Amino acid sequence: MNINRFKENPLITPKDVKPLHDGFEVIGAFNAGVAEYNGEVLLLLRVAERPIATDEQQIKAPVINKETGQLEIITFDKNDPKYNFDDPRTIRLADNLERFDYLTSLSYIRIARSNDGHHFTIDDQAFIYPYNEYQTFGIEDARCTKIDDVYYVNFSSVSPYGVCDSLISTVDFKTYEDMGNIFAPENKDVLIFPEKINGQYYALHRPSLKSIGNYDIWIASSPDLKAWGNHTHLIGVDKDNWDSGRIGGGLVPIKTSEGWLEIYHGATEDHRYCMGAVLLDLNDPTKVIARTKTPIMEPDESYEKQGFFGDVVFGCGGLVKGDTLTMYYGVADTSMAGCEMSIKEILQQLANER
Amino acid sequence: MNINRFKENPLITPKDVKPLHDGFEVIGAFNAGVAEYNGEVLLLLRVAERPIATDEQQIKAPVINKETGQLEIITFDKNDPKYNFDDPRTIRLADNLERFDYLTSLSYIRIARSNDGHHFTIDDQAFIYPYNEYQTFGIEDARCTKIDDVYYVNFSSVSPYGVCDSLISTVDFKTYEDMGNIFAPENKDVLIFPEKINGQYYALHRPSLKSIGNYDIWIASSPDLKAWGNHTHLIGVDKDNWDSGRIGGGLVPIKTSEGWLEIYHGATEDHRYCMGAVLLDLNDPTKVIARTKTPIMEPDESYEKQGFFGDVVFGCGGLVKGDTLTMYYGVADTSMAGCEMSIKEILQQLANER
Repeated sequence: MNINRFKENPLITPKDVKPLHDGFEVIGAFNAGVAEYNGEVLLLLRVAERPIATDEQQIKAPVINKETGQLEIITFDKNDPKYNFDDPRTIRLADNLERFDYLTSLSYIRIARSNDGHHFTIDDQAFIYPYNEYQTFGIEDARCTKIDDVYYVNFSSVSPYGVCDSLISTVDFKTYEDMGNIFAPENKDVLIFPEKINGQYYALHRPSLKSIGNYDIWIASSPDLKAWGNHTHLIGVDKDNWDSGRIGGGLVPIKTSEGWLEIYHGATEDHRYCMGAVLLDLNDPTKVIARTKTPIMEPDESYEKQGFFGDVVFGCGGLVKGDTLTMYYGVADTSMAGCEMSIKEILQQLANER
Repeated sequence: MNINRFKENPLITPKDVKPLHDGFEVIGAFNAGVAEYNGEVLLLLRVAERPIATDEQQIKAPVINKETGQLEIITFDKNDPKYNFDDPRTIRLADNLERFDYLTSLSYIRIARSNDGHHFTIDDQAFIYPYNEYQTFGIEDARCTKIDDVYYVNFSSVSPYGVCDSLISTVDFKTYEDMGNIFAPENKDVLIFPEKINGQYYALHRPSLKSIGNYDIWIASSPDLKAWGNHTHLIGVDKDNWDSGRIGGGLVPIKTSEGWLEIYHGATEDHRYCMGAVLLDLNDPTKVIARTKTPIMEPDESYEKQGFFGDVVFGCGGLVKGDTLTMYYGVADTSMAGCEMSIKEILQQLANER
């Protein structure tokens, strides 16, 4: 696979983004959903802000108070044996490292705009800021699906209630309508298909399972985009391969003559994130036609290998012009990059490796 | 609360049920959904069968082969250090006791019928036997909701893909129509309300969460009973109380003049299961009016305290006649029992403890 990374990469880094909160710093501007609107490319950035460290012995957790809606900061002593601070993203109980108690940053969705798709200007304000009790720890990893003239944006809502997937609709990227939590916790990486298939909407989703089962991709259908059923297991992690630890949908599925092309992410158990591809039946996307055995893209450049959480390429959106897929992707849980690839070439790899 | 237990308790025990499989024994006939049909009381029993032990040093796991549909037995050596056999219900990896790898029995749904509600005859065959790849480890804990003249039966489908909730509809308790997996894994204890409220169907559900969040009860709505959305957190576990470890819906919600009455189960972290009550707004069941602080029913009788997994009362269904709720409930993950209670008295306790 030829991946033509933009020479301007990384396109957006945390230092390009002014924090919304006094006393905070932006540590991530990444994992953006993508839309084309009014002749512009919009990146629906996940911006992560954290309180600026003033004491090396402290770790701080920003949390929105669900009663007052105010942002509050909880301070932890790095030497407190009750907690574990090894993962820079989370604060965990030392005796239960499988779960987290707090996040070290607050994420929300903010728009970056571009006329040429390479040079972006970042809005001063948030587009989607935590607006309910399911989002007191933040909003993460937006995906944007255009259906007719409406843009549907879904994202992870994170709070002590769990991690669920929520949906809003917008026609102007200024205001939006809340369509509720569309997938119950614990679920992430929801990708809504851009059209109805046989009278139903479809979406990929990725449950996180407590008692049994892997971090696999499922598919569901809906009459109205709000309510989802017919949950069907689609593809699983591939033991001993690049996607052995977890997989999840990446880009909104792309309609091709050969099927629905889904570019998804996969990670090893060591959290090295690559992108792969799977081809689904055009008339019944619960049927898998082919899946890549090797990644179509791996972390390679320094901006992909080093950062807040390194060795990560994580595409959440793309734009298609003819045979060219322009993918915008998060790198190292820190910044945004862009690249171009040939859809024909992805389909060829799928045919070769099927 | 006065609980009038049936003098015939336990009503059904494993020895009353003939195993379906040669070389197997029935170890549980419990956690039944309840329906009134053609003048009879039907208990939709969860029947659990396991291979008869022939070697004390072995543990066996029955699994349905998803390719052939045949029941197969996997044998484990009790001394194999890779596995842990402390929980009689599951086989777990010794280094990951939070999850299970296999179950020690296969459950399915079988009907017990009665003219008087006290004396039951058990069907020779299964009503719902595992019928797809989501059920290779079994089908558990049916609930039955009658809407108009159709009976909807939902249950946990258990397999290596996860634990999800599936729905069938029936009009004769002989044949049924598959309505798919209505809640993605990991989810249990789904209770469908018996009528539409403001044009939508409603259901309680209980996600099991991996990364953050408790075993709490959520509520969702649906246009068609198959697809569910607007997932809303309803009530949480109550730390330091009888329902500190986990809670989940029990009986189909009962319409009263004061609100929707839900009889739910709760357990401590030591797995002592009691029943409590919560009252929801008649016109908007996402609103909680009151919740009991003390259980309405606790394991007390010997058949509730001793069995395959003791100290459990677990109601999955009931019948209402005037002020009397007849609850049928699983005891000790082994048998079925019955009791009567006054709905007025439950509402009074809710008023007192609100």
